Parts: sequence; C-alpha cells; structure tokens
Amino acid sequence: MSADTLTDTAQDRLARAKEAAREVARLTSADKARVLHAIADAIEAQAPRILAANGDDISRGTDAGIGDALIDRLRLDEKRVASLASAVRDVATLPDPIGQVVGGHRMPNGVALEQVRVPFGVVGAIYEARPNVTVDIAALALRAGNAVVLRGGSAARSSNTVLVQVMRDALEASGVTPEAIQTVDDFGRDGAKALMHGRGFIDVLVPRGSAALIQTVVTESTVPVIETGAGVVHIVLDSTAPEDWARDIVVNAKVQRPSVCNAVETVLVLKDAAERLVPVVTGALQAQGVTVHGDVAVAALAADVVPATEEDWATEYLSLDVSMRVVDDLDGALEHIRRYSTGHTESIITTDARNAERFLAEVDSAVVMANASTRFTDGAEFGFGAEVGISTQKLHTRGPMGLAELTSTKWLARGAGQIRA
Amino acid sequence: MSADTLTDTAQDRLARAKEAAREVARLTSADKARVLHAIADAIEAQAPRILAANGDDISRGTDAGIGDALIDRLRLDEKRVASLASAVRDVATLPDPIGQVVGGHRMPNGVALEQVRVPFGVVGAIYEARPNVTVDIAALALRAGNAVVLRGGSAARSSNTVLVQVMRDALEASGVTPEAIQTVDDFGRDGAKALMHGRGFIDVLVPRGSAALIQTVVTESTVPVIETGAGVVHIVLDSTAPEDWARDIVVNAKVQRPSVCNAVETVLVLKDAAERLVPVVTGALQAQGVTVHGDVAVAALAADVVPATEEDWATEYLSLDVSMRVVDDLDGALEHIRRYSTGHTESIITTDARNAERFLAEVDSAVVMANASTRFTDGAEFGFGAEVGISTQKLHTRGPMGLAELTSTKWLARGAGQIRA
Repeated sequence: MSADTLTDTAQDRLARAKEAAREVARLTSADKARVLHAIADAIEAQAPRILAANGDDISRGTDAGIGDALIDRLRLDEKRVASLASAVRDVATLPDPIGQVVGGHRMPNGVALEQVRVPFGVVGAIYEARPNVTVDIAALALRAGNAVVLRGGSAARSSNTVLVQVMRDALEASGVTPEAIQTVDDFGRDGAKALMHGRGFIDVLVPRGSAALIQTVVTESTVPVIETGAGVVHIVLDSTAPEDWARDIVVNAKVQRPSVCNAVETVLVLKDAAERLVPVVTGALQAQGVTVHGDVAVAALAADVVPATEEDWATEYLSLDVSMRVVDDLDGALEHIRRYSTGHTESIITTDARNAERFLAEVDSAVVMANASTRFTDGAEFGFGAEVGISTQKLHTRGPMGLAELTSTKWLARGAGQIRA
Repeated sequence: MSADTLTDTAQDRLARAKEAAREVARLTSADKARVLHAIADAIEAQAPRILAANGDDISRGTDAGIGDALIDRLRLDEKRVASLASAVRDVATLPDPIGQVVGGHRMPNGVALEQVRVPFGVVGAIYEARPNVTVDIAALALRAGNAVVLRGGSAARSSNTVLVQVMRDALEASGVTPEAIQTVDDFGRDGAKALMHGRGFIDVLVPRGSAALIQTVVTESTVPVIETGAGVVHIVLDSTAPEDWARDIVVNAKVQRPSVCNAVETVLVLKDAAERLVPVVTGALQAQGVTVHGDVAVAALAADVVPATEEDWATEYLSLDVSMRVVDDLDGALEHIRRYSTGHTESIITTDARNAERFLAEVDSAVVMANASTRFTDGAEFGFGAEVGISTQKLHTRGPMGLAELTSTKWLARGAGQIRA
C-alpha cells in the first residue's frame, strides 16, 4: 500500500483528476506530444522495474492457477515493454483532434456560432488482465486533452502500479501535473464503484474486457458509459458468392486471430449455394484446425461436423470453433442475424449488387461489409492509429473508437450585443 | 383502460416498437414527410376530442390543486392545438438526416469505408406536464427514422392518451404501422421502469422535466441516456463591458422568458466595473419587476437588493429573480462559474478580445458566448427547427439537440475479396 492510500480516498483521486483535467485541456498539441515522448522514454528506461513488478504478478497468478492463456496475456517481456513505448510514440504523432471546428454558421442576427471539439475532461476506464491497456488508454486520453482514472484487473496489479507510477513521474518531469493519470486499483472494488458512481467527476467511462465485466459496468454506472461489446460476428455466403472469396474470407476471419471480437463466429450459407460452398469452406477451415459446429444441412454436405445446438448460434467462441447454418434465402440470413448478432460486424460475400446493398442497408451493426474480412473492424485498420475499443452502442460513437471519440464538443457564440426578440 | 392493456405488458410495447423501428427506418424522406402531414391533419381534425380530453386533465388538476402555473402548462385551447399541428408540419419540412455520409475513405487495400447516418431505432422519452412534448418528440423521432416510446406526466394523462391515439390512427391510415408510436403511460411507474431498464429495446432515452425527474432517470437507467439539464446560467460583466450591452443583454436574458433553462440566474460583475454597471443593470432589472439577490458589494451600490445566501448561487430560479455578485477579476468569475454552473450556457459582456477568447476557451459549458443573450441557446435559434432538448452532458451531443442528434451512424465497408494480412 502506498503512502497515498493512508491519506486519501478514491473520491479524492477523482477530484484531483478533475482539477488536473483543466491543465491538460490547455496543453498545446506540441506540449502533449512532448509529454507522450517523455512517457515512452520513461517506460523504456524503467523496463527492469516494470519487468520485476510483472514477475510478481506472474508468480502470484501461477500460484493461484489462473491458467496459461491469462498468464500469457499478463506477461511482459523486454520486447513487449518496447512495444508499449512505441505505441505511446505512435499516439504522440496522431493529429490532435482538439480545437477542430466541426460545424457552425452565422445566425440571422449576426451572432457567429462555431462548434468546436474539446476534451471530455476525465476519462475513466475499467479493464482486465493485459497491462498494455493501462498505457494505451492513458496515452490516448492525454493526446485528446483528458485526464484519466484507471481501474485495471487485480491479476495485473503490481505491473499496473509501476506503469502508472512511471507515467506520473514522466508527467511531473515534463512540468505537467502527475494528477492527470490516476489509478484506483488500490481501493479494490470500492475503486470501481467510485468510478461507476463518479457523477460530476467522470465524464465518460469505458469498460474493456469480458462480457460480464461490461454488463456490470453498463448496468451499475450512473456516469455515461461507452459499451464496447462482444462480437457474435456473422458472414453470409450468398447464392452468388465466388468460391475463392467465400473460402479465403471465412478462413481469414476465423483463423487469423481467433481470440478477438472481430473474428467470425457464425457462417450462414444460402440454400442454393450450400452444395457448392459448404464442402470447400468447411474443408479449408478444418485444414486450419477449426471445429465446425453445423446444422443438419451442413452435416449432410461435409465430414467431421459437430452438431450445432441453439446455444452455438449465440456463442462468441473466441477460439478455433465456428458455427455454420444453411438458410433458405437472404431473408432467412437477415432474420438469423437480427436474432443472434451482438451488432458488432457482419459481412456478406456476393457478386449480386442488389443483395449486397440490401445487406448493407438492413443489417443494424456497427460495421456492415460486403466482400471483405470482418477482421478489418479495427482502429488501426480504419486508419485511426491506436484504438480505445470498439463501441457496439449507438450513442456517441459506433465501431472502432479513435482519438476523436475521446472528445466532446462545445458551441461558441460571438456576438455584438444581440438580444432575443 | 384500452383493450390493449388487458393483453400486453410494457415490455410487449417496447418489443413492438423495436419491430416497428425496422419499418420506419426503411421509409423514404418523402414517405416520412407524408406521414407527418397526415398526423398534423389528424390533430386538427380531432381538435374537439383532444380538447375534451384536455378538459378532463384540467378538471382533475384543479380538483387536486396542482397550481395555476402547472394548469397553464397543461392547458390546450384551439390555438395551441393548431400550433401542435403546425409544429409537426415544420418538422416534416426539415432536411432528412438519414443516409447522410459523414465520413469515409478508402483503405490502403482498396476496401471503401463509408460512415453513414442511420436511425437510432427506438427513442424513449420520459417527461412532464406539457402535452405538446408528446407530439413534438414523436414527430422528431419519426422524421429521423425512429420509433418512439413515450411516458408523459400523469397530470396530462387524458390528453396524451388521445394525442397518441390520434397519431397512431394517422400512421395506420398512411399505411405505416401504428406500433411506431407507443405510450407506456397506462402502466404508471412500471412504464417508466420498463423504459429505464429496456436494454436491447430502447436505444436512447431522453428525460425532459424537473431536475428531480432527470436525476432519477440518469441514475436509475441501464439504457443510454441523454441528460438534458437544468441551467444555472451566468453572465459576466467584464471591466470593459459597454453599459448598453450589459443592461440590455442581462435584462433580455432574465426577463424575456424567465421560466426556461437558458434564462440567466447569476450576474457576476468585475470589481472595477461594479460602480459603473451595478446601479444601471440593477435598476433596469427592477424596473421589469425582477428581484435582485446581491452580495454585500452589490447591496452597497444599489437600492432594494435582497441579501444573497450561499444557496442563491446554486439556484435555478426560473422566475423574476436573479443573483448578483461582485468578483475581483476574470479569474474570480471563472472560479465562481466552475463551482456553481450546471454547464448549460454562460456569456461574457466585454470589448476586450483577450478576455472574450479566454472566457470562450476556459468555460466548460455546452454553449459559451461573448456579447450575446443566453436566450439564444435554443434549437430553433440555432437553426435546427424543432428541439428535442438541450444536452448538458458531454457524451453524444452537447447543447441544443436537433434531428441529427436523434440518429446514430454505422460503417459500411465495400470490398472485393480483401482479407487481413
């Protein structure tokens, strides 16, 4: 326990972040870039200390038997620490969204209205496991002129404590208040509660992690939340889907990185293409070690298909598993997607322009594609540089969130004595 | 009680609104205009029925002793019904935001990305007293391609029941599902609860009314909310404020319509302008029947000043009262605003460009003005046509909300077989 916790509360940290936010909001783009480079340099310089703390987390996790996958996500090594620093440098080079004029006009009475991008103020984040999120979110928040309050997973507690300390020291050495980066990790559950109920202090709260974590944050928070959701992602193989596109896109969307939210989980094949496409797509998936969970029609057309249950259609596997179903027609595919999609990403493979446009228009998801891999739903791929998360809600932002999504706007009105008639 | 309530629940209504939203989202701009004109015509044609129901509300309110101000807000007459219809016709002529392309570019691999404006889906509204809100919000929601679920105040229950029925009948007569406009008024508190907890059914919920109502909706809801807040609105009279601008703008901002959120509540006068401005501004306000609650410095410079208490600085009077305080300098004014403002609107009266720009930059409110009346913070004045409310939160939208603020976006990606490397 640090000396701080003897003298302050989670609420005090939120208040100090709010106060610091005023200072960060006034930094110029060049100032913010300089501070981020100082943070990146400090992370590199302090690599041994960061790795030692991470070693503590790994030992504790191993003793507690948290499992190899989690240990792997938790683990830092010299290369990973270097890429933490390089990610911060990348964020430093992104164009500064603050001050951008996004709208405006002159009122008939001559008052000049201007809508400008401003920082949110204080960004909160509640997340799990990977210590890189601590650095990524702090860097993005700072670049967009915000202070940040972090609540990481308890498994990464030692790593996060040191990373936050290193970043705060770098702020201070750069002449910027260290209070702009706060953690409430040392308050345990109370820290998360303070964030979720921090009305007047937290302008937006972003949960990142498991569906259970996100559900808790969304339902318990009284501050505004951006929901970053799970992805039960669909690919539809239309009657006209070219065999090579169908095979290559489905395999890429499943196999290239199965553990992430934009990986495909369900393939829907139109009935009159099933005989042509199910065997080749299933075979290509199985050749890459994928287990195909199929309905009866799929099982009749391919070998080694595991029978799919109702539960499969609603499952985000995040593994080398995929569900596959034959549907009567495009209406059947759209109906299935309405029922089971989490609104993240869906793609149709087709050469029929009418079906492509109908799919793009009618599917109500953050990203809707024709003839492309669902793996493209990603901030870096969209050209946003780093990524805060992928919003699956409709308020504020939808899809990959970049720097602009960590800002708000305000209206400026410049008059010369005008009053309302 | 209608036949419906015997067979369904508030949850069923939400589900029917969600289903109807798909149909409304597909209507063309011309279709939506036609439907809105049909609604306006129906309101005019059914005026006697609407007025009879409103008479029931007025009698019930009078018997319950709800007070003259509330009775006045509740009351419809032929002229007010006519202006309900004309407001709907105005909304019908507003440009349709749906389908607008708000961003996009081609990825390096050739995938064409396009960010387009789409309807939210289902808009919920919880509001009080005035029956015109029932019609305004339904019309705006429809124009932006949404279905709507309404929960009005119990005082206006009979009026709202008939207005909703008239609008639903007009939808049906226009060949559009009447389920696009729902009320949950007949479920009482359970109706409001269904809206606030309608995850998966309600895409955004807008509370309009008292601070207490808004507070309840914001803290209890698990669906995304847009907070439309109270306005403790400030005007700062800088050392260089011209006497005529100071007087005319303060009087206009207080007197022109004192009961609304953009009316000024506190005037802050810089010390070295106090002797010059306090007497003339106070006198002009008092001549219009305004009670001035002042600090000691104000009371020393003007007659008939009521002593201001700490509570006055935090009060949204919504009446012919104003608080006035002398501050040392611009820093003192900014400090007062940070402490007491609700982040709605603040204005500075000054001819000093440096102070004007500092005020515009540093005040963290939805609308920040120099040399204009705070009464301009209004959807109609901003050129948005009708207004859903004025957002005082930073997520999604800030300031007056027009049609575009009742929409979300989605990303469309059009490829030719691209996969991720």
